[in-house]
Amino acid sequence: DLKTLLMDFHHADIAEILDELNLEEAVYVIKLLDSDTTADILIELDEDTREKILKNLSAKEIAEEIEELDTDDAADIIAELSEERQAEVISHIEDTEHRDEITELLAYDEDTAGGLMAKELVKVYETWTVAGCLRRIRGQAKDVRRVHSIYVVDRQNKLKGRLSLKDLIVAKSDQKIADIYITSVDYVFVDEDVEEVAKVMQKYDLEAIPVVDKNYTLLGRITIDDIVDVIREEADKDYQLAAGISQDVEADDSIWKLTKARLPWLLIGMFGGLGAAGIIEQFNDHMGAFVVLLSFVPLIQATAGNVGVQSSAIVVQGLANDTIDGNIIKRLLKEALLGLVNGIAIACIGLVITHFVFSTPYIVSITISIALIAVIIMAAIIGTFIPIFLNKRGIDPAVATGPFITTSNDLFGILTYFLIAKLILGF
Amino acid sequence: DLKTLLMDFHHADIAEILDELNLEEAVYVIKLLDSDTTADILIELDEDTREKILKNLSAKEIAEEIEELDTDDAADIIAELSEERQAEVISHIEDTEHRDEITELLAYDEDTAGGLMAKELVKVYETWTVAGCLRRIRGQAKDVRRVHSIYVVDRQNKLKGRLSLKDLIVAKSDQKIADIYITSVDYVFVDEDVEEVAKVMQKYDLEAIPVVDKNYTLLGRITIDDIVDVIREEADKDYQLAAGISQDVEADDSIWKLTKARLPWLLIGMFGGLGAAGIIEQFNDHMGAFVVLLSFVPLIQATAGNVGVQSSAIVVQGLANDTIDGNIIKRLLKEALLGLVNGIAIACIGLVITHFVFSTPYIVSITISIALIAVIIMAAIIGTFIPIFLNKRGIDPAVATGPFITTSNDLFGILTYFLIAKLILGF
Ligand SMILES: [Mg+2]
Ligand SMILES: [Mg+2]
Ligand SMILES: [Mg+2]
Ligand SMILES: [Mg+2]
Ligand SMILES: [Mg+2]
Ligand SMILES: [Mg+2]
Ligand SMILES: [Mg+2]
Ligand SMILES: [Mg+2]
Ligand SMILES: [Mg+2]
Ligand SMILES: [Mg+2]
Ligand SMILES: [Mg+2]
Ligand SMILES: [Mg+2]
Ligand SMILES: [Mg+2]
Repeated sequence: DLKTLLMDFHHADIAEILDELNLEEAVYVIKLLDSDTTADILIELDEDTREKILKNLSAKEIAEEIEELDTDDAADIIAELSEERQAEVISHIEDTEHRDEITELLAYDEDTAGGLMAKELVKVYETWTVAGCLRRIRGQAKDVRRVHSIYVVDRQNKLKGRLSLKDLIVAKSDQKIADIYITSVDYVFVDEDVEEVAKVMQKYDLEAIPVVDKNYTLLGRITIDDIVDVIREEADKDYQLAAGISQDVEADDSIWKLTKARLPWLLIGMFGGLGAAGIIEQFNDHMGAFVVLLSFVPLIQATAGNVGVQSSAIVVQGLANDTIDGNIIKRLLKEALLGLVNGIAIACIGLVITHFVFSTPYIVSITISIALIAVIIMAAIIGTFIPIFLNKRGIDPAVATGPFITTSNDLFGILTYFLIAKLILGF
Repeated sequence: DLKTLLMDFHHADIAEILDELNLEEAVYVIKLLDSDTTADILIELDEDTREKILKNLSAKEIAEEIEELDTDDAADIIAELSEERQAEVISHIEDTEHRDEITELLAYDEDTAGGLMAKELVKVYETWTVAGCLRRIRGQAKDVRRVHSIYVVDRQNKLKGRLSLKDLIVAKSDQKIADIYITSVDYVFVDEDVEEVAKVMQKYDLEAIPVVDKNYTLLGRITIDDIVDVIREEADKDYQLAAGISQDVEADDSIWKLTKARLPWLLIGMFGGLGAAGIIEQFNDHMGAFVVLLSFVPLIQATAGNVGVQSSAIVVQGLANDTIDGNIIKRLLKEALLGLVNGIAIACIGLVITHFVFSTPYIVSITISIALIAVIIMAAIIGTFIPIFLNKRGIDPAVATGPFITTSNDLFGILTYFLIAKLILGF
């Protein structure tokens, strides 16, 4: 039957199937399977699907699923419920230790180490022997899916060091933990930003990291599988921000949700375009014989946009990976120099093509070429400065790529172009 | 002294310091420290720094570092050397098993599971007992930094299943492996793309995955720390492609390297801009009283660019995350509808502002508004179609965002705008 058929699949695969079913069928499957499977399925579902399914389960039924989950996943699911429902579900959790731990985790911000950690971990005292420690792990094994490291704490639950399971197996059974544990243990503070946690775990190749409060009391631990999800989500978010998509959306989302994510940037781009029209109108009436300049507005605009996006992307990525140091002036000078190099190359080609293909007079071709160099340098500087500035002000620089840079460069680029033209051609 | 001072740091931190030092100092530090530390440092260095340092070491010195490394890292370093140097370094590796394993790994493409796997793993036969197995692990422990799973193989080295260290500790010492191992083990084939391996490991929350050939012979295993690096690198690469940066560069790279990565897209954007100038010239002479249309070219261009980048980013991400199914027609229809919704919103605002702020006649404002709707729908369709098309042709769709889409939409957008204007205004 369906139940036996589904039990052969991994819970992550069942979740993918459920995401494609209609709500009635999905709820049917969830009620059909045992909570030790469905709890894992719930965690892997799309947030939208999960929300709809949970609406169709009673508080008691949700609590049964929660009992099966690790504390980090349990807290994440409960946090998605309305406040009254949260209290109701929590009151139905029978395992009081599990309940208290989940309640503790609910207090932490989801973007911090506390919001990512689980309470499940194995800890031992340094006074224990290896044999006692192995007995303890056998006792705790049911609660902890993967042991990774064993944390050594003192009587006040302060983190002293760690031991790997392998070290424990290799040691003699009457050895004291105190003699074999590693005191240089990596840890993160509970209020650390999750992206920082990800950087630490990636840099030191960690599979799990203990989380402590400011007194070094061991509070929980973060495992690499959850960090992998953080890295992927943050990368997706930055990619979307750079493309002018302001909410986390997927291709399969509704037209309404996609419009909400996309229209704001189109509007900002539109006002940029109208601003550019205003600038052109200012110069238009006086241009006379030089009306040909208008034909090259798209060239100026495209060049300014491309340079700006390139410069900002490199800065945003450098800031995200901590490879950029604080010296703004040095970086702006470098970008300006880079702009000059690229600008001269583009300007030379532009000079030849405008003069010989478009038959513009030399003075007009020279004007366009000089404007190209100026616009490229300006776009490189704006593209570099804005993300660094936002970062200093505590704003995520990732918002400052794509349409943001393109729009400001459209305006500044076109203004620069006509000012230079006015200066050289004297209209 | 310096040696004792540095020994207190983690090798990843020493690598960061070395990346900042000049070559002479860096080589001094590498020669000062013992190879068991410097080998780990070498792995963590920037590729450029490593290349320069290795040029200053003899083949024998490099071989000494290689002896200390896991086979995957060893093969990666050797692969960066020139072919003659590779042979020379390999001939200096004294541990023949290590040498043969590295030579085997060098044969695999770096973008496949084979290029990422290490030969270090713990394997046992199902006929063994738990006690025998624990003895074996104690024997192999020195070679395998982290055990993760223990793989169960048959006499032909075919993968049968796996066991976690925890399962082994929890089991009774006289139990047979055959009775306790898990037969449903995840694995990847040796020629699988690394991005696929990353997806599998992320989906099933794996810390290590065995790699097999098509006969299910166990060849090696991939650990999550290397997958985390792959995920980060691939995300960085896609982000740069979307920004029109065609090589892996960092803010700190030389102006020459940055120019090589950035100039190609600027040139393509330039030819797009010159193409747009050609289109404008075609219509220019006949426009007469409607020359005001030229003022709104930046608006059309900005809108087409923004919509195109948004659409393509969603498709590229959907393809990367496997959330887009194959139905192109359905997706294009959805994007067209989305374009219509966004287009009408933008067009209404455009109508009001152009007429009342810019005092363009109603017929011109209506022309601009209709062109905006048409251009938005067109840009959405192009932005959706191109990545799907490239993907079907086996080309990485990530190249098809940013400047690529912007440039094509500049051309099509401006052409559409003037064609619609000609139709409505009849010039
Ligand atoms: Mg159930
Ligand atoms: Mg965040
Ligand atoms: Mg959480
Ligand atoms: Mg790492
Ligand atoms: Mg590593
Ligand atoms: Mg977890
Ligand atoms: Mg971020
Ligand atoms: Mg050395
Ligand atoms: Mg490799
Ligand atoms: Mg996962
Ligand atoms: Mg998970
Ligand atoms: Mg490795
Ligand atoms: Mg890719």
